[in-house]
Amino acid sequence: MKTSNLLLATTRETPSDAVVISHQLMIRAGMIRPLAGGLYNWLPMGLRVLRKVEAIIREEMNRAGAQELLMPVVQPLELWEESGRDATMGSEMLRFSDRHDRAFVLGPTHEEVITDIVRKEIRSYKQLPINFYQVQTKFRDERRPRFGVMRSREFIMKDAYSFHLSQESLQETYDVMYETYNRIFSRIGFRFRAVQADTGAIGGDGSHEFHVLADSGEDNIAICSNSDYAANVELAEALAPNSARPEATQTRQKIATPNTHSIEEVSNLLQVKKKKIVKTLLVQGASKEHSVIALVLRGDHELNELKAEKHPLVASPFTMASDEQIQAAAGCSAGSIGPVGLSIPVLVDRTAAVSADFICGANEDGFHFTGANWERDAHISEVVDLRNVEAGDASACGHGKLEIHKGIEVGHIFQLGNKYSKALNATVQNENSRAQVLEMGCYGIGVTRIVAASIEQNHDDRGIIWPDAIAPFQVCIVPMQMHKSPRVAEAAQTIYAELMAKGVDVLLDDRAERPGVMFSDMDLIGIPHRIVIGERGLDNGMIEYKYRRNDAPQDVAIDEFMAFLMAQLAK
Amino acid sequence: MKTSNLLLATTRETPSDAVVISHQLMIRAGMIRPLAGGLYNWLPMGLRVLRKVEAIIREEMNRAGAQELLMPVVQPLELWEESGRDATMGSEMLRFSDRHDRAFVLGPTHEEVITDIVRKEIRSYKQLPINFYQVQTKFRDERRPRFGVMRSREFIMKDAYSFHLSQESLQETYDVMYETYNRIFSRIGFRFRAVQADTGAIGGDGSHEFHVLADSGEDNIAICSNSDYAANVELAEALAPNSARPEATQTRQKIATPNTHSIEEVSNLLQVKKKKIVKTLLVQGASKEHSVIALVLRGDHELNELKAEKHPLVASPFTMASDEQIQAAAGCSAGSIGPVGLSIPVLVDRTAAVSADFICGANEDGFHFTGANWERDAHISEVVDLRNVEAGDASACGHGKLEIHKGIEVGHIFQLGNKYSKALNATVQNENSRAQVLEMGCYGIGVTRIVAASIEQNHDDRGIIWPDAIAPFQVCIVPMQMHKSPRVAEAAQTIYAELMAKGVDVLLDDRAERPGVMFSDMDLIGIPHRIVIGERGLDNGMIEYKYRRNDAPQDVAIDEFMAFLMAQLAK
Repeated sequence: MKTSNLLLATTRETPSDAVVISHQLMIRAGMIRPLAGGLYNWLPMGLRVLRKVEAIIREEMNRAGAQELLMPVVQPLELWEESGRDATMGSEMLRFSDRHDRAFVLGPTHEEVITDIVRKEIRSYKQLPINFYQVQTKFRDERRPRFGVMRSREFIMKDAYSFHLSQESLQETYDVMYETYNRIFSRIGFRFRAVQADTGAIGGDGSHEFHVLADSGEDNIAICSNSDYAANVELAEALAPNSARPEATQTRQKIATPNTHSIEEVSNLLQVKKKKIVKTLLVQGASKEHSVIALVLRGDHELNELKAEKHPLVASPFTMASDEQIQAAAGCSAGSIGPVGLSIPVLVDRTAAVSADFICGANEDGFHFTGANWERDAHISEVVDLRNVEAGDASACGHGKLEIHKGIEVGHIFQLGNKYSKALNATVQNENSRAQVLEMGCYGIGVTRIVAASIEQNHDDRGIIWPDAIAPFQVCIVPMQMHKSPRVAEAAQTIYAELMAKGVDVLLDDRAERPGVMFSDMDLIGIPHRIVIGERGLDNGMIEYKYRRNDAPQDVAIDEFMAFLMAQLAK
Repeated sequence: MKTSNLLLATTRETPSDAVVISHQLMIRAGMIRPLAGGLYNWLPMGLRVLRKVEAIIREEMNRAGAQELLMPVVQPLELWEESGRDATMGSEMLRFSDRHDRAFVLGPTHEEVITDIVRKEIRSYKQLPINFYQVQTKFRDERRPRFGVMRSREFIMKDAYSFHLSQESLQETYDVMYETYNRIFSRIGFRFRAVQADTGAIGGDGSHEFHVLADSGEDNIAICSNSDYAANVELAEALAPNSARPEATQTRQKIATPNTHSIEEVSNLLQVKKKKIVKTLLVQGASKEHSVIALVLRGDHELNELKAEKHPLVASPFTMASDEQIQAAAGCSAGSIGPVGLSIPVLVDRTAAVSADFICGANEDGFHFTGANWERDAHISEVVDLRNVEAGDASACGHGKLEIHKGIEVGHIFQLGNKYSKALNATVQNENSRAQVLEMGCYGIGVTRIVAASIEQNHDDRGIIWPDAIAPFQVCIVPMQMHKSPRVAEAAQTIYAELMAKGVDVLLDDRAERPGVMFSDMDLIGIPHRIVIGERGLDNGMIEYKYRRNDAPQDVAIDEFMAFLMAQLAK
């Protein structure tokens, strides 16, 4: 394509709401334009990237034996009433009435619709397992859409849904999808990790999120420096320390700590490191018998509520104890609680459990203990993993230390079990002619989000640096003074025609612009391979080549140029 | 692909609302399934066809220099307020509020959005002309969705919009789009006509509809038996008869015609053909001076209101005169009006104007004249084309006679002029640095509708007969008893693998079904080329080939088979 036939909408202006680099660069490179809050037009330059991402996804989904179909954007609300999600979806699901006052929604996802199709169309276990996917527009009425297409209201998803007679069959397809997602994200050129994820409100058993590692990510991911292990910090196991608890060396003393409530304040007052202090939190218990539970962590550690909530003694949803409950259980206010003398269950984090000679609240307002020790001074009901992992912690895989990265979720695979198939009564006849409820998996990829995530990983101060696989164009040709030099024009057209004939996605910048403008536009747009043709080069029989990631251009002899370029493209 | 990995959802049942054959066959062949009124799921078999249609459209739009972009399904209502169409769109445009109570619509079309993009992005006349297109989901809340995907509520359109500095430039792009549409519909295998169309409520100057000729069409199209000429019956010109008006031979007589009001009744009472009678209709005039106008047509002809409305004396919108007006102007009620003695303007249809010795109302209730003649008895103010053309009429192109066909509109191209660019103030700087309002064209194709329209043209009592270009599969292989005969299985797999390697879209029916079931499924689905492999054929060194449109299969020697098949596919 030639720039004369392409809307090049590069601009220096970025809207004030563009706080992440991908949002800024997508606007500046003329890929997208806002239409309204959370709604974006994809201009030709952006759509080229989006279509390449879609093509890779389709190829890999087809290779994995999934079948593409297409379900409507608009869905009848009654299906959501049938699954019970009408009540739980909240106002992110946009509801409206048609001219006959029937209730519909703009599909935020399609579990209900696909389950409705399957319960009607799949009659025999012989048709199973089956895996359907679509690439379709979704709408979620985000309260605060942000980060451009990363969290927009209208977006494109690839969503797949598989159906099975057994958990084993579901696990097989899940494993195939796991591999397929790895292939897709590798082909797109991501640095990413498959991350063990929480199954959350959607329910079900196994789940992995695929996270692109980038500083602007909204999720905290713990990854092992030495293996494939990765987990959302919410879920990553904090191993017990290798070393045993040291012997007690101090005697316990009560000291006055007036107006000192937080770990920070105690640490400052006593001039000790936070790790020498333990913090004690009282939370609601799960039973009447134990209506308040104590959680104890080292002062420098963060409570992981999800982990706490999974303990059978702790109430779900996780809820802090009230001031009255704290007074009743500990005889003080929240800032002075400690494990010494508590008569409620005391769950102690694995790391806090190996502390010795520690500082803790004295269960008396304005006082702390120093030199406290487990067993001698305070009872441990149970040692539990209660904290968030931190950088440098041993990885639960046993192979290295953890790093904490920010991640952008671009994919999610999920074993739903029979949540939807049960609610919608999706059954088939099994081998014994009995109706059997189907097992179900779902597999999502945020297609539009991928484009932004790739930019988050691939940019410099001049603009975007596309991986070859999803670049809007693989190659750009920038002729110097083409409109004044017939030699340059001819050389440019020749190379352009040759590349087009070879099926290379090439952009010829045939604008009558200054070289500086053309260079900075091509760098901003992020085309990986740049060819510069000028009078001076031609005099020397040379054409200039530059790879977007490298600073230095190189001159290549004209008659070797095409072979050289094709070798670069094949890398 | 193999049927074991494809949702074959063929069925004998058709829903009671499926009144047209394409709707029935799309359900029966497992291409679509209803989700709710006017909302359809596209199952894998249907989506394959849809994607092939989309691919052809994209190829031809790109070839024509149009640029693909993508605009959201959800649009802010304020853009429609700005264009003024908020008021005129009625309840077909589905409106709703988001969680912040801001008003949006589900885009029924995208003129406003693209004009908003262009007014912001196009800064110089040097960027013109420019032509953008998208393939996007639209929603129109039809009061009575029907005919399956032919008139559904959610559907896919290819819509393109071009912008220009001058009418001449618009005409050029319009002509290119005209040719492009002809290429697209030819490649899809349609028997179709480009039809002169009315510009209707959308406004503007030039317009063509592309109609697929099929009995289930909702439009009446007049086409010349001998040329490319085609026009919507609403617009087709009825030429004046070649012959002059015969001389009067009868004297005018008033006869009693009690309780005889319609042409039908007069014809029956007097035992004369309707063409011997003229009918006189009084309608509202455009001015106070001539508030009532008489329109006269031959009794066997139909008034074309659109033609009448275009006459400067006739009120727009076209409105019949009231009973009071008729009494005042003609002295009788509507069933007895005639042109004799009227003192209001009398517009006479070209054909009625050459009638002689005709019968007409006597402007006296219960009486008609016989033997009436123009000029001698009744005044002609002006001879005008007022009627619908009929089969057998001379074509306005001068090359043949008209046939009247039913048509399904699959495309529409339209010179909008500056209707939207003016309302939204879309201007560019012209060569003289003056802001100039843009000229605009729009070009639509009903992508989902095309699939149905193709079936309307291509089916028999066994099912669909796809044109090769959009068939879900080009070839199907039906092995006989493959699960019992290793020879058959091997031969089938070999041919399947060879065809796959050649990039042929082939379906191998590897089900353990009876041959009859497989044959009738493949015929119903409409795959053009069928290969049957069986023990008996292999014994004789033969493979059976059948073209879906032909009744007779033919045996082809195994070693010549691949060459034979490739020749069939290349036809």
